[in-house]
Amino acid sequence: MSKTVNLAHYMFTRLRQLGVRSVHGVPGDYTLRALDYLKPAGLKWIGNCNELNAGYAADGYARIKGISALFTTYGVGELSALNAVAESFAEFAPVDISLGDGSLGVYADIYMNFTVAQASLFDPSTAAEVFDEALEKCMKESRPIYVNLPSDMVGAQVLESPLGRPLEIAPPTNEAGLESIVANLVLDRVYSSKRPYILEVNELARVTGFPTFASTFGGGTVDSTLHNYHGVHGGGHGSLDFAPYTNGADLALLFRLFLSDTNTQGWSAVSERDITLAFRRKSIEFGASNVYQIHIRRFMRRLLDRLEPGRLPKQISAASTLPSVRNQAASLPPIDSSASIDQDSFYLRISSFFRPHDIIVCANGTPLVGGRDFVLPPHATLINSAIWLSVGHMFLATQGISLAQSELGTGSRTIFFEGDGSFQATAQELGTIDRYKLNAYIFIINNGGYTFERLIHGLDAEYNDVAPWRYLKAPEMMGARNDGSYDFETHDVGTWGELQSALGNESFQSGKGLKLVNVRMGRDDLTSNFKPALKLAGKQLMAETS
Amino acid sequence: MSKTVNLAHYMFTRLRQLGVRSVHGVPGDYTLRALDYLKPAGLKWIGNCNELNAGYAADGYARIKGISALFTTYGVGELSALNAVAESFAEFAPVDISLGDGSLGVYADIYMNFTVAQASLFDPSTAAEVFDEALEKCMKESRPIYVNLPSDMVGAQVLESPLGRPLEIAPPTNEAGLESIVANLVLDRVYSSKRPYILEVNELARVTGFPTFASTFGGGTVDSTLHNYHGVHGGGHGSLDFAPYTNGADLALLFRLFLSDTNTQGWSAVSERDITLAFRRKSIEFGASNVYQIHIRRFMRRLLDRLEPGRLPKQISAASTLPSVRNQAASLPPIDSSASIDQDSFYLRISSFFRPHDIIVCANGTPLVGGRDFVLPPHATLINSAIWLSVGHMFLATQGISLAQSELGTGSRTIFFEGDGSFQATAQELGTIDRYKLNAYIFIINNGGYTFERLIHGLDAEYNDVAPWRYLKAPEMMGARNDGSYDFETHDVGTWGELQSALGNESFQSGKGLKLVNVRMGRDDLTSNFKPALKLAGKQLMAETS
Repeated sequence: MSKTVNLAHYMFTRLRQLGVRSVHGVPGDYTLRALDYLKPAGLKWIGNCNELNAGYAADGYARIKGISALFTTYGVGELSALNAVAESFAEFAPVDISLGDGSLGVYADIYMNFTVAQASLFDPSTAAEVFDEALEKCMKESRPIYVNLPSDMVGAQVLESPLGRPLEIAPPTNEAGLESIVANLVLDRVYSSKRPYILEVNELARVTGFPTFASTFGGGTVDSTLHNYHGVHGGGHGSLDFAPYTNGADLALLFRLFLSDTNTQGWSAVSERDITLAFRRKSIEFGASNVYQIHIRRFMRRLLDRLEPGRLPKQISAASTLPSVRNQAASLPPIDSSASIDQDSFYLRISSFFRPHDIIVCANGTPLVGGRDFVLPPHATLINSAIWLSVGHMFLATQGISLAQSELGTGSRTIFFEGDGSFQATAQELGTIDRYKLNAYIFIINNGGYTFERLIHGLDAEYNDVAPWRYLKAPEMMGARNDGSYDFETHDVGTWGELQSALGNESFQSGKGLKLVNVRMGRDDLTSNFKPALKLAGKQLMAETS
Repeated sequence: MSKTVNLAHYMFTRLRQLGVRSVHGVPGDYTLRALDYLKPAGLKWIGNCNELNAGYAADGYARIKGISALFTTYGVGELSALNAVAESFAEFAPVDISLGDGSLGVYADIYMNFTVAQASLFDPSTAAEVFDEALEKCMKESRPIYVNLPSDMVGAQVLESPLGRPLEIAPPTNEAGLESIVANLVLDRVYSSKRPYILEVNELARVTGFPTFASTFGGGTVDSTLHNYHGVHGGGHGSLDFAPYTNGADLALLFRLFLSDTNTQGWSAVSERDITLAFRRKSIEFGASNVYQIHIRRFMRRLLDRLEPGRLPKQISAASTLPSVRNQAASLPPIDSSASIDQDSFYLRISSFFRPHDIIVCANGTPLVGGRDFVLPPHATLINSAIWLSVGHMFLATQGISLAQSELGTGSRTIFFEGDGSFQATAQELGTIDRYKLNAYIFIINNGGYTFERLIHGLDAEYNDVAPWRYLKAPEMMGARNDGSYDFETHDVGTWGELQSALGNESFQSGKGLKLVNVRMGRDDLTSNFKPALKLAGKQLMAETS
């Protein structure tokens, strides 16, 4: 007789094979039984305070590990988590959402909008296979799936043997010959260009030496130590103005760019279509005319193999006119210790605190905009959200990222820049960071409300205020104890001198435990070059319907 | 020319006409413009920390005012709020959800599952009428509606004159003659009964003198000072056992009862169908055989008018065997000041703190079960959730209830019994209670985790733990200041003596400001008679699929 295992054990083992070590969620009546199978399968339970928060944390975890799992009860739990899953769907984070029970089709129907596969495990004879197929889809598409695990199926016996066969998660292959044809077409354009640029991709930027930028969302996807990396391309609203170069360009290589209004500063950072080669996940677009259906991951390897550096343009016209974020940081005047911290220089100056391999996370609002000025060290990663922009999301993503980092044992530090309004949205999870002894820096950019909204409309409006929290009291309130079991420290800084003294401390630099910094900034302060973008948004908001 | 007003002004004026004075929500880019119209229409903005919380608060507000408004941005905001709206839908709280912008049909489709009307205000010539129709439906059905207000329609000019005509929100009338026929049928059964009882309804209980009970969900819907009110009917799992009487009953009058497993203690509190007259919102069921479609609100008036007290049964058999919650409270032994507070007597003893007109709110979990033992003074109201049971909901409902109370100027106190796990789910809104200077008692039943879940499964499991918060530090952390602008006090109690000393204080009794009490209880303690119900749930959970 063939050996069998419980279905829950099978599922958790599959997740472990793919790199999952922790499962996020909130316990509910119908999930309790399955939770007992986590530990035997080598998984840890991370109990968040509510399901929406757990969903956000799973999203962050997936951005590091390539996959994560969110486990909630049906109905109440899954509806609360919905917005987080929609976020993962929009921004390509592969999350496996498993639910205890759930005979109510309405929820599954809702989730169809935000997941690439839905698996209902009602039949013991097919459950393992159905789950495997969904999981393969999750990995291949890098998007969430929805799995319905009835509580009375948790202990159903399924064959163990398939666990010996790895899931098929390799990126799809392309039609023979197609890769060569398209590679030639791309290289012809590359070789013959005179004023080209690249938006987001490391290897091609390194080999070609073409001027390279990142988008707001993609800051950190390009190795910013490359001599030809210039900074985040913010159209007319970036800190640096690349338009004098890009406006006359003859080739724009765009990689996996999220073309949303928020990521392109109201479309101002988008190139003319006839000079654009857009590399998407499953296709390449040549201007407005030709589209080739091709899986980009494998294709890029082929393209780089074929590229002959000797045929690249010898000289790139007007490249010398390009400013760079590195030079901008280097040319800052020495700090005035007693001066207040301002948005325009904060993100440039704090960059000297970063180390190789740091993971830097920016919340929506002022940090997202300011973070475009970061000068990242090699192998540092910048993570943010520029499409879905759900308030409070990135704090939980930081929790998930920090957890994933500690599981990988890389020693990387997780550094988070938060807004005060965002922090209040999901603040209770500071207790989760403490409870599971996670390591994280949290810089709260405290400007007394929703500054981003203020600058769009309602500068002094009460609806843009938030409650005047004493943020530094949060760790102690949520359970942190100075008893040697966990390091936590808090700092209140309003001047450059105060910031410098906090950062200079060796225990602070270690990255161990929780470092919470309340950074007081002006209520209406925002990176100068971005203010007109919000002013424009405000003007559009006040326009009447035609 | 006819006078016109902005659409936003029109909408907010309509809400004000129905009793709304405050609108809950979180500001977003596309809602900012509309928010400027709140104040001129006589409405106040209540800014919550996130949209789910705002939705829960609107639910609470609607339970007092009969209507409330939740205002969020589209996409992100409305998806976060979804679970709260589903809750209002399930439990009949009329909430008007208005959104800024929202051309994406997928969200409206999702909301169709949880709202009784959806209005998209794209056309200035019909917008006011479309909104009015939806609002009438909201009031008549006592359920949420979904309104999509594009930001460029905020200032659209609509005729002011319809505002002079009140909305049609009167309960629907019944067919002539039908009320008399059905009333006679009901009264025949009432007159000829020998061992009848009533589940939830005041007036009929008062006039007939029949033994009367409440359901878990409906505790407080019956005036518990009536001599014939005996307590919450918990089937075999109530604190008091009414089964020896009800099992032999010949008539059960059930009013607007939510027949969910949670509200009937796993169906154990449901009467045999052939002795049951079930009064629903729009029908009356005579046992299993006859159903009359009739609107119950108007019908009840007719029924009471026709009822002849002289024809009621002179003697009710076996009524003397019935215990009552009042006697149970009166027969408690004197307190031992140094003894630990226990679940079995806490809810009975704390009842002496209640005053007429108090609004008492119970969170899900241990307080929901314990609250069945409250002995309420006249005109006190008990509010809880026994269907949707979303963690953290009732704290926000308390915020909404307290706000509604203060607007009504009744001087009623709002008294909330919370769990520690629930509190963590939505804790940040303590800052909102402080920011808007609301009055509320919050008793946190602190038993170190999800006790309700522990007793179902996983008594010592880590997944039923929560972070060890220092709850009493929360008000100060979230902005409360002892500067005379707002009263707040905190108490830590673990023994009966400590509880008594906190309650005895005159400033505490006033109900002004925030009174936060950390009530330490045993980790595994729960109202004794309910433990078997959870044990049974645990056993069912572990059962295999057949």
